[in-house]
Amino acid sequence: MVALFLLILWKYEMYLPAEFAETDPELIRDVIAQFPLATVVAQTAEGLTANHIPLIMTAPDRIIGHIAIANRLHEWVSPTQDIIAIFQGAQAYISPNWYPSKAESHSQVPTWNYEVVHVHGRMTFQHDEKSKIAAVGRLTKIFETQTNGADAWRMSDAPADFMKSKLAGIVAFEIAVTRIVAKSKLNQNKSRQDIENVSENLLSQGAVRMSERMKRGKSTG
Amino acid sequence: MVALFLLILWKYEMYLPAEFAETDPELIRDVIAQFPLATVVAQTAEGLTANHIPLIMTAPDRIIGHIAIANRLHEWVSPTQDIIAIFQGAQAYISPNWYPSKAESHSQVPTWNYEVVHVHGRMTFQHDEKSKIAAVGRLTKIFETQTNGADAWRMSDAPADFMKSKLAGIVAFEIAVTRIVAKSKLNQNKSRQDIENVSENLLSQGAVRMSERMKRGKSTG
Repeated sequence: MVALFLLILWKYEMYLPAEFAETDPELIRDVIAQFPLATVVAQTAEGLTANHIPLIMTAPDRIIGHIAIANRLHEWVSPTQDIIAIFQGAQAYISPNWYPSKAESHSQVPTWNYEVVHVHGRMTFQHDEKSKIAAVGRLTKIFETQTNGADAWRMSDAPADFMKSKLAGIVAFEIAVTRIVAKSKLNQNKSRQDIENVSENLLSQGAVRMSERMKRGKSTG
Repeated sequence: MVALFLLILWKYEMYLPAEFAETDPELIRDVIAQFPLATVVAQTAEGLTANHIPLIMTAPDRIIGHIAIANRLHEWVSPTQDIIAIFQGAQAYISPNWYPSKAESHSQVPTWNYEVVHVHGRMTFQHDEKSKIAAVGRLTKIFETQTNGADAWRMSDAPADFMKSKLAGIVAFEIAVTRIVAKSKLNQNKSRQDIENVSENLLSQGAVRMSERMKRGKSTG
């Protein structure tokens, strides 16, 4: 489902040893859906700029969001330049003490486990009210349903004049996805026993998602 | 303590309304210390590159870390170019339903609260073993002490030959901090009652840090 072009790894790609490459579209979609506050990075005429924006994937090659009209990103980014939207999922420090094999050989060092999704694409901005209502409506529906279920807030709960003024203060955008590079760094280079024990340690710390991701392996969703 | 140059906001800066600008050096250091897995973004000859690297601040103007020698970032980034290390702290979706004032006027919309620190700086890499031991030692001491207290793993727990081979596989680096721009988006534009109630809702969801940050206000740490 997700547009993946992992075979053509760009020279300047995120460092990605083969064992940590995430190619499961379902897991990639899950990281985006569970950790929607993306870091959107772009190169401007005067240097790098990064903004933190909640995004949703509405199709395998399409991500949408909106920003304040006062955020000049919509003036700085051209529809022909590459941007990256970075979604960071679960992450945890991994102590060598947690590997049972360490007691035998002592040949372990600390590391950090994490799951990240880099969506590369091109951003186009929409200033018309219809597009803005559509974007806000889709984002709101997803986040409100997750948060409040049947009591979800809707745009129509607010006075029309108020919503009109709020919509005037934003710009909607789409990211046309050109490629997705994802990394699930989950100790896949360790023994099953080491992974199990690290996973148990993380669970006892409350790091539920990372613990489960490690137990399931990187591509079994 | 932290080098702050907020008065000179670069044109291409992160969108930062005044009420969300974080200027408390202690809070900035705390986000870096509690959420050390940074997203390090650089511009290369062929486009943007982003990597996820645990970092520690060893002085107000100095951040250190290390990467695998196979991560070609150390070849792509020159010591004269600007990079950004982005630390993302607590974050949470905020439903309009959680503002008591909504029941009166219905004039509220969803938002996202978050705390982020953008450290701008210049990266220099160290390939000598002494620098690498120093970097690994400092990172390990901090993360292991937090995780295991008195049972903290030390480099000297591992066989010397093994550590030597592991050190050969990494490159250490320092980031000389040129400026820090931080944002604490915590509903500061809402009434005290609205903030209190959102904070309670977040606490009941388990979002402890965001709940506490909101209650304390952005700069009372």
